[in-house]
Amino acid sequence: MENMSRRNVLKMSMIGAGALALSGVNADANSKDINWDEEWDVVVIGSGFAGLAAGVTAANKGNKVLIIEKMSRFGGNSVINGGVMGVWGNDFQEKEGVKDSKELYIKDIMKAGGGLNHAELVETLADRVQDAYKLAKDCGAKFIMLKLHGGHSVPRGALAETDSGAGITRPMTEFFQKIEGCEIRRQCKLDRIITDDSGKVLGIEARVDYKFDRNAENDDKENTSGTKKFIKAKKGVVLAAGGFSRDKHFRKAQDPRIADDLDSTNHPGATAGVLLEALKVGAEPVQISWIQSLPLSSPDEKGYGVSSAFTHESFRFGIIVSPKTGKRYGNELANRKVQADYEFKSKNEDGVYLLSMCDSKAAAEMLPEKLEKVQKVGIVKKFDSLEAIAKAYNIPLDEFKKTVEKYNQYVKDEKDPDFGKNLSKAITKGYDFSVPPFYVSRVIPKVHHTMGGLNITPKAEVISSSTNKPIPGLFAAGEITGGVHGAVRLGSCAIADCLTFGMIAGENF
Amino acid sequence: MENMSRRNVLKMSMIGAGALALSGVNADANSKDINWDEEWDVVVIGSGFAGLAAGVTAANKGNKVLIIEKMSRFGGNSVINGGVMGVWGNDFQEKEGVKDSKELYIKDIMKAGGGLNHAELVETLADRVQDAYKLAKDCGAKFIMLKLHGGHSVPRGALAETDSGAGITRPMTEFFQKIEGCEIRRQCKLDRIITDDSGKVLGIEARVDYKFDRNAENDDKENTSGTKKFIKAKKGVVLAAGGFSRDKHFRKAQDPRIADDLDSTNHPGATAGVLLEALKVGAEPVQISWIQSLPLSSPDEKGYGVSSAFTHESFRFGIIVSPKTGKRYGNELANRKVQADYEFKSKNEDGVYLLSMCDSKAAAEMLPEKLEKVQKVGIVKKFDSLEAIAKAYNIPLDEFKKTVEKYNQYVKDEKDPDFGKNLSKAITKGYDFSVPPFYVSRVIPKVHHTMGGLNITPKAEVISSSTNKPIPGLFAAGEITGGVHGAVRLGSCAIADCLTFGMIAGENF
Repeated sequence: MENMSRRNVLKMSMIGAGALALSGVNADANSKDINWDEEWDVVVIGSGFAGLAAGVTAANKGNKVLIIEKMSRFGGNSVINGGVMGVWGNDFQEKEGVKDSKELYIKDIMKAGGGLNHAELVETLADRVQDAYKLAKDCGAKFIMLKLHGGHSVPRGALAETDSGAGITRPMTEFFQKIEGCEIRRQCKLDRIITDDSGKVLGIEARVDYKFDRNAENDDKENTSGTKKFIKAKKGVVLAAGGFSRDKHFRKAQDPRIADDLDSTNHPGATAGVLLEALKVGAEPVQISWIQSLPLSSPDEKGYGVSSAFTHESFRFGIIVSPKTGKRYGNELANRKVQADYEFKSKNEDGVYLLSMCDSKAAAEMLPEKLEKVQKVGIVKKFDSLEAIAKAYNIPLDEFKKTVEKYNQYVKDEKDPDFGKNLSKAITKGYDFSVPPFYVSRVIPKVHHTMGGLNITPKAEVISSSTNKPIPGLFAAGEITGGVHGAVRLGSCAIADCLTFGMIAGENF
Repeated sequence: MENMSRRNVLKMSMIGAGALALSGVNADANSKDINWDEEWDVVVIGSGFAGLAAGVTAANKGNKVLIIEKMSRFGGNSVINGGVMGVWGNDFQEKEGVKDSKELYIKDIMKAGGGLNHAELVETLADRVQDAYKLAKDCGAKFIMLKLHGGHSVPRGALAETDSGAGITRPMTEFFQKIEGCEIRRQCKLDRIITDDSGKVLGIEARVDYKFDRNAENDDKENTSGTKKFIKAKKGVVLAAGGFSRDKHFRKAQDPRIADDLDSTNHPGATAGVLLEALKVGAEPVQISWIQSLPLSSPDEKGYGVSSAFTHESFRFGIIVSPKTGKRYGNELANRKVQADYEFKSKNEDGVYLLSMCDSKAAAEMLPEKLEKVQKVGIVKKFDSLEAIAKAYNIPLDEFKKTVEKYNQYVKDEKDPDFGKNLSKAITKGYDFSVPPFYVSRVIPKVHHTMGGLNITPKAEVISSSTNKPIPGLFAAGEITGGVHGAVRLGSCAIADCLTFGMIAGENF
């Protein structure tokens, strides 16, 4: 297929030269002979957090930038992201008196990563994440409150307006669209990365008017829509095409436990196509078998849905209980892998969904419209008593009451001897599980984030497996890369990673 | 670099045609225009277990087969392998009355693999491993006794003569060399896989008279020795080039915990070069971040050395003790990852090497010349009493004595309540730790096996990331592939995997 497209390149580029017939050589194309349809300083693949940060940064430096997006709407998976950006030393921490540091931020990320993190990338993230936060705000993104995600020692998540990633991507998209000489283009798909003889990246082969096919078994492989274009990138190409949580074939090859019918929080376009094209020009893959499932999800809605607006707070301020035993199942603030593992275990071995629950004090921490929505779509149910909960989910009542009593004592003691949940007042605000109404949601993990991808330098340059040095002209940022998060990504670190390395990629031009 | 070599291809292939100048096109080569220096039915890359099994099988079917080996000696890493092949239902099991089954074999492998195994590959391995065992014997390999490795429910390892993989590779090499019209060639290195327009593999670009440079930081990247040759493979190319345990850059990118100075059991040629070339023609990578360190190694010798001849038996019949506490540290028959993790922990956190020790009954299970050798090179020391051991390694004597007493009782009870080691009589033969002389070795893990690699079908066809179907003409077997072992490979399953899938690859022609 690669070679087929090279032939097509040639056919187009050789028109008038006739060399094909003359020489009898069914020769491959070379970039020097391509009739470029367009010419830009920088071409960015993907319009999510990473692509927008790269595009805006490069454009702010005076470059003519094209951002392409294969889907019919901008923002990729970032739009349906939960909108929380983990930034140490942010303004909300300052206001609330939360002590944080670069060192603690690095330590938390590396601990979850299980030693697989590329330390120099984590260091870079910690050094620059405040600049990336500022970049988003400079583009018009507004942040409204402080959040805590599992695995973080302190609350350090800045929540974007609208309670979703769209609160960041929309203002950034609008900001970018206003920059003269730049363009962000829908339904334009990368097919191939074009290099010269030395391996330097010169541009891309793409298709415009591409129509993503939601019904295809594998859109990357099957879809033939659109019109071919050769797009030159004088200074470089930035790959910011995201992860492959919805690529059934590729994710299962990496982790056969991920059955085709396992739901994902991602949008349908989250496939491995661009990652795999990069491997063909010698980009080095790292850690691609580490795939994260989001334990904050609900079996009672499809895709990402709205559950995490509830479960984030419920995990923090409430308890997770097995309806089979009436007991807590683990540390509600463990990292995502630990939590997903025990949710899968309960479902697969005990045959029951675990229940995430909190009381009215915790519920008051949620945006009222979100609390209303999760109940309206039916994933969260409201109860007036422990008895009512036990009856609804068939929980052994005595054990359940004992569990709640014990937990409430632990909150007072600021210590969880059973599972080591961090119950310091800074985390719980002193909230126990006592004041009705109570809110309950069933939980199940969904495929969420692919930690591995392309190996990059701290300058977001893609490393060549042929030279162990950067591939000239090729950059990457965000979920398409690997190494930042190691084995396990912490919640709120996706936006941090994507915006920071996107920004750094853009600074190269 | 890839493109550079393509240009060279062209320069050579276009001599006399003059099309280069005529067309003004600095065109890439196409395989149709290559002046092939040689033509074979099948070209096999690598001369270890997998390459030999593929070569012999294809040759037995009447094909003209070339096996190439980049090093100056044949056999790759297989030569220094421990020589134990895990085969369920083998002749030694029958003689000794050990009950085994295909189902148990699969279960053990999948359990160690942590759910990451590609089930259809494990199924194929179990179905065909007895045929592969027969193939080795038909080529003249002799097996001499039954062994047990950690993670296997029953002893099912057939040990080759000479107590090493050379007991298999040497007879197979000689067998192959006698087949008319075939050749096995040293110092010949694959540089590139050549495809036609459709992506079908037609042959390779290689260098003859290649001189591997042991002093290079990265031989694949730096070495320019040898003379270029274009070698046509009419029916297909089999990649059997092994793993990348000695590729400092690539292994660290996958797992940053693997420091450059961490010793490896592998020969210096175990690099990722061929794997990375395969990615460039669209081969799909799987699970490449899973790298195994061998817990049976000694810090008192370099590389693979001779320690495992002792530690295999010592783990089975003896105990592993921390000199700091005098206590056992874990299950001596756990899988390699579990064992390696606790050996690293002891070294890194407690600052001491764990001690593997057994008594004279266990020692009698080793080949006498091996027992002599491990003492001669100084990695195993002999003692007459527990007191002498405690003194030599600074172990708290009382605790140590208690540990031994407890363990000996466990052996009687056939049950290990502390760590769950399988102490059934079928495993221990009733041996406790009581009869001097005692033998002791310090243990540390060394980088040993790379579980991930190229994705293959059960027919050993390499899967294309562009189509999710086999790449026509491209096959792979052994450590260069991924999926069979998942997260953790059990001891004795490397030979089984390599010979079985090598054989299957060869059956395609």
